[in-house]
Order: sequence, then C-alpha cells, then structure tokens
Amino acid sequence: MSKTLIKNIGSILAAFSGDVRKVSGKKMKNLPGVDDAFVLIEGAKIRYTGQMKNAPETAEQVIDAKRGFVLPAFCDSHTHLVYAGSREQEFRDRVMGLSYEEIARRGGGILNSVKRLHKISEQQLYEESLPRVHEIINQGTGAVEIKSGYGLNTADELKMLRVIRRLKESTPLTVRATFLGAHAFPAGYKNDPDSYVDLIISEMIPVVAGEGLADFIDVFCDRGFFTPDQTARILEAGMKHGLQPKIHANELDFSGGVQVGVQHHALSVDHLEYVGDEEISVLKNSNTIPVALPGASFFLGLPYAPARKMMDSGLPLAIASDFNPGSSPSGNMKLMMSLACTHMRMLPEEALIASTLNGAYAMGISDELGSIVPGKKANLIITKPIPSLAYIPYAYGSDIIYKVMIEGREV
Amino acid sequence: MSKTLIKNIGSILAAFSGDVRKVSGKKMKNLPGVDDAFVLIEGAKIRYTGQMKNAPETAEQVIDAKRGFVLPAFCDSHTHLVYAGSREQEFRDRVMGLSYEEIARRGGGILNSVKRLHKISEQQLYEESLPRVHEIINQGTGAVEIKSGYGLNTADELKMLRVIRRLKESTPLTVRATFLGAHAFPAGYKNDPDSYVDLIISEMIPVVAGEGLADFIDVFCDRGFFTPDQTARILEAGMKHGLQPKIHANELDFSGGVQVGVQHHALSVDHLEYVGDEEISVLKNSNTIPVALPGASFFLGLPYAPARKMMDSGLPLAIASDFNPGSSPSGNMKLMMSLACTHMRMLPEEALIASTLNGAYAMGISDELGSIVPGKKANLIITKPIPSLAYIPYAYGSDIIYKVMIEGREV
Repeated sequence: MSKTLIKNIGSILAAFSGDVRKVSGKKMKNLPGVDDAFVLIEGAKIRYTGQMKNAPETAEQVIDAKRGFVLPAFCDSHTHLVYAGSREQEFRDRVMGLSYEEIARRGGGILNSVKRLHKISEQQLYEESLPRVHEIINQGTGAVEIKSGYGLNTADELKMLRVIRRLKESTPLTVRATFLGAHAFPAGYKNDPDSYVDLIISEMIPVVAGEGLADFIDVFCDRGFFTPDQTARILEAGMKHGLQPKIHANELDFSGGVQVGVQHHALSVDHLEYVGDEEISVLKNSNTIPVALPGASFFLGLPYAPARKMMDSGLPLAIASDFNPGSSPSGNMKLMMSLACTHMRMLPEEALIASTLNGAYAMGISDELGSIVPGKKANLIITKPIPSLAYIPYAYGSDIIYKVMIEGREV
Repeated sequence: MSKTLIKNIGSILAAFSGDVRKVSGKKMKNLPGVDDAFVLIEGAKIRYTGQMKNAPETAEQVIDAKRGFVLPAFCDSHTHLVYAGSREQEFRDRVMGLSYEEIARRGGGILNSVKRLHKISEQQLYEESLPRVHEIINQGTGAVEIKSGYGLNTADELKMLRVIRRLKESTPLTVRATFLGAHAFPAGYKNDPDSYVDLIISEMIPVVAGEGLADFIDVFCDRGFFTPDQTARILEAGMKHGLQPKIHANELDFSGGVQVGVQHHALSVDHLEYVGDEEISVLKNSNTIPVALPGASFFLGLPYAPARKMMDSGLPLAIASDFNPGSSPSGNMKLMMSLACTHMRMLPEEALIASTLNGAYAMGISDELGSIVPGKKANLIITKPIPSLAYIPYAYGSDIIYKVMIEGREV
C-alpha cells in the first residue's frame, strides 16, 4: 500500500489512545497531542505518528504541513443536508418578526421542505445535495450523519434514503444514514397523528430496513411533535428491524425526550436546549451521548443547550451542525466550534473533542474515526500555520484549513 | 484603457443612482438592481451596466459570471487590523468566566496589544498585518478604514500609521487611516488622565497631521475611558489640523459619546450598544452616520446595537467588522451581514446597504465606492450562483464568493 508522510507538523491534536471511544466531563479539558511531529499514512489509514526527529526519511508522497496543526477531520453527527431548495424567504419572514412556529403555520418550516421534496426526482435531489457534501468536505468534515424526514410518506422517505446511499457511494466521506419518518406529522394526519405512527411502524420501517437504507431510527420527540409514548412505539419497531435509536429531544420544552431516548438505549439524544437536573441525571447512568446543535440556536436566535452544565456534571458532549434549510443552513463545523466557545462557554479543547471523537461516538464509528491513532482512518485536517488550538475558534470568520485528507487522500 | 465585460450576471445589486451618498430609514428596505445583466469596466472604473440583451459583443477581457450576482465590494468602515499578535489566550480566559473588564485588569485587553506592539518593528508589524489585508480582500472587502491606537505614545502611534500607509500603497484596497491615540489611557497615566489628553493634543496630533498619516481623529468616549469633555478637546484639536472626527461611542454605557460626536460633526459614531431615544433624536438632526459592530457583540456575547430601532426611526446605518485581536478577530463582512440579520433583525437588503454604500459614507468615500454606478471604482464581488440576495446572509457558514475585483482587476 502506498505511503504518505505528513512532515513538519506544528502539533498533532486529539492523539487519544486507541481504545478511547468518547471523552466525558472534566477529561474534555485535556487534549493529548504531539508537538513537532509527523504522521505516516498507509493506504486509507494512519500507520503511525511521532516526533519529527524520528520521522521516516521518505515515502511515496510527502506533504509538508509547514508547521500547521493536524487534527481529526470533523465528525458531524446530526444533519439534514439532503433537501430540495433553500428557504431564505422564511429567513426574511423571521427577520421581520415572525416566530419559527408562526412561519410553520403559514406553510413554511419542515412542511415547506416536504412539499418541495415531493416534487423533485431522486436524480435532481442527488444533484442538489452533492455540492453540499463537497462543501462540508472542503470545510473539514470527514464523517457525517444524514437524516431523511422531508418525505413523510413511504416513497419520498425512500427517495431521500436512496440519495443518502448514493452520496455515500459516490464520495469519500464516511456517511451514516438515519430514518426520520417521524420528523413531523404530514398535513393529512393533523387530526389523527397515531395513524401516521402506525404507518411508520407497519409500512416504512420494514421497507427501509429491508433495503438496508438506514443505520439509525430517529423521532422528533417534543412539544407539538411526537409524544414520548409515540416515540417509544417507533423506536421499539425500529430496534426490532435492527435500527439503533438516535433522537431529537428537548429542543422546545422539557418534553420527556431525553428519558425515552435513554430508556431505549439511544446512541445519542440531540438538541437539548431544555435540559435540567433530571435529564442530566438520567443521562449520567447511560451510554447515550448528548449532542448540542449550536448552529440552530445561533440561526434562530434561541437559547443554547446548557453545555457547560452537562460537561461539569460529568457527561460527555458532542456538537453537530444540524445542517438543514430551515434552522441551520450551514455545515461549517469550524464555525460550530466558535459558537460552542462564544455562546456555550466551551473551551477550545472541549469544542474540538465534541466535534471529532465524541461526534464519531454519536454515529457509532469512534472505533475508526475521530482521533489520530494508528489504525484509524486517515481523515485529517492540516491547518494553515496557527499559533495554538484556541486560534481555531477564536478566528471565527477565517478559513484556517490548508488541506483536508479523507482516507489518506488529499481532497 | 482596457475594457472588461462581466456577462451573464443573474442580478446586479445596489445599483443606486450616482448621487445617492447614503441610504436612511425605510429606504434601506429597497435595493435597486438589474436582472439578467452585464457590467462593462473601463480601466479601474465602472463604465456602464445594463441588461444582457444590450451587452457589448466583446471586450479585451470577458468574465462569465455564470448567473452569479454582482454586488459592490464591502466597505468596512471600522477596523483595528494593524496589530501585533493574536489574543486567543484571553479568549480562553473569557470562556472560563472572566469578563472583558476583568481580563483587562489582569494585563489583557487593549494594553496587552499595546505591550506587544511596542516590542515589534515597523517592518514586522507590516508583515504581520499584510496577510489580514489579503484575507479581507479575498472575503470581498474593497475598502477599509484602519485605526491606530495600540501605540499610546507618539513613536508607536506613528509606527502603526506608517504601516497603515504602507498597506495602502502596497495593496489595491482603498484604505482610510484613523488616528486613535485616545483608545485607552497608557499604564503610566492612570492617575493623571488629563496629561495624556494634553500629550495627544500637543504632541501627537501635530506630528500625525504634519506627516499626512491620518484622515480621521477618533476617541474611545465611554465609561472608564475618555469623558465627553476630554473627547471634545481632542476632536477640536484634530479638526484644527484637518482631521475629521469619527468616534467610538456608547459601547459600555449611555456615555454622552453620541452627543459629543454629533456636536463636532463626526462623520460617524460607532459601536452604539447603548442607544436610546435621546441619542436617536440627536442623530436625526445630523449628517453623522451610526455604525454598528455586530462582530464584537457576537464574539463577546454582549448586547447588540438597536439597529432595528435606529432604522425604524429614520436613521441611516452602517455595519463594520471591528476587526481587532480582542473583541472581534475577524474582518469577514459577509458573516457580519449574517449577524446583522440573525441578531439585529436587519433585512438582507438593509444589511447589504449597511455593508457597502453606508459603509463607504462612514469613510467619506461614497462618491466613489459602495454602489454599482457608472464612474465609481470597479470594486465588485461576483458571487457563485445563488437564488437570491437573502441567500447571502442565510448561508451563514458558506463562502459565496466566486471572484473579487478591485479597481477593475481580479484579485
């Protein structure tokens, strides 16, 4: 296998030992690294790392990092980046004073994306989503979770999931797919929500799982969306078909979402703008990781998840972009790190761990991604020369990326 | 003179008529434009614009905009981008819970930059600042104001102003220089602030003006900094030497800064986090433009200027980046537009006018920059294909720039 040497690295970050799958609480303040270093890549994987004085003399390919830092490519564990059409008109409406809920009542919001998605072909949807995947790769993302949920009927949900599969097959990105038929109630089911739950359970889940189109099952468990009981039914049906729970919870209220997620061994519970002592206590006795989505709080001007409190209570934490056309039209994870530091009081070390190793954990792939360890995939960011890790979130409007490598290759 | 044709433009934005020098109040909601258009550039200037069907057949150089939009390059009227060393360590301290004022008391803040600036040579300072100028050009800025104010003694203030002059001479950017000796009180003058005011007036202003190093005189008029009386003395001395007032006001309190600025016919009063009915009324009867700095509010997690209220009261408004190492380490004006829309309830049209024509007015250069009008400098942004103006601030983490042109040349 071909060898690539990255030499003259100012500092390698997130060089956790290989068996660390996630980092919790106070440990998130510490980021193991190697100064004045090299990385040797063999094929798609990291072969070994060390100090420059011990670097191999040569390799088939040599990249001079010019004293830039090397960090794991971002692991963005929560996106809806397969969608049809941007929704900047609703953004205008919101600036003019309409709330997100009012915009939804006027035919905007998720159901607006549902209408648009229904109208376009699978091919068009693929072509529209592909540039977004290339954009996030160029912004340093090496692994991403993508959800369905703008279909809300069997055919359209399958259309989305097939596009996610094509994106996985046609790009070097590591992709995990989530079935989110329970993203909202379609217009026709407003007065009979349980029938939609029945449809998800009896029709959608079997065909999605049968075609192997999803890794995870997700439900938007919140005030005005799916109740904890409906959520439990859907998660149980998904689990029977081999889909692991990973849910939206507590964005709009103390909705019981965290509790129902943990009860069903969800890999992650995401959003968490409304989290108190009870939710934290439930999470502490679980393997479920909380995921904060600072981009949505920023873009909607809403409260942020209490990240500091969760970490200070000993919990692990991931951050993700929530890339979607309504509440967070960006997948820029470096900017999410800035938001985490400026608005959730996360240290730069915590924000980096939350965006890499803990993000990988939230996708069930932290055995192969999220830290710089021999044997893991060589999904890496090489930065421009920077004075420190803290400079990355500090320079909040700057592009600090020199090169992105996915599976050992420059993109 | 060589002619350049930009063809296949989806929409030209900010095509105000040539005598519009600034836009105020409700008029900021309307952005004149031309759809399906071309721009013809002759030498450094816009020669004429029109619809594609009337475009000249050819020119020495032809640029295909591929349906992207053309807008004026940003006019960033308030920066401190000449500085020595980043201050991400203070950013860490702030995340850990220290206030900006506490950090200043510990030797951080402006006086930290003053110490660092004192130690480095003019040549080093130039070399460190030049990449920041190139960065903002690549982010679409075509004109910028840069302040001194990390010297706080005659020699170091001159060092900064000479670097600003070198940046002006060595880059294609339109640069305006501001003397801000009154940025803070140097350590030795804590107990005798009036003596520092005397030094500024008797020594600094004459030599700065004598060497022709500054266009504007600035004072940080606020609680804990310069009083309105001290500000008045400095502004009057500056005006006697031909420097036009343009001041920092009301960032920390209702400090009287707006009033003293308007009394002295300041071109702009900047920051304005604390602005009430009285300040608005004073501004209404003046030619002084208020300038909001959303990057500083974002980065420090502090209140934003009441932009909506000012515009609804009929005032004009500019936004600027405040690019500086402490409170806003970015000059990314496209991101400032996103902050203006998401956090100050500005419409995309208002945010664009505030970042271009009104920014040019706040630098006294709106006769030659800030809108797309025959005879003005051809400082332009050509965007990637985008569906609408609103998409620019909406896609808050995306790079929407296809090309930047400064004085008719691609950069």
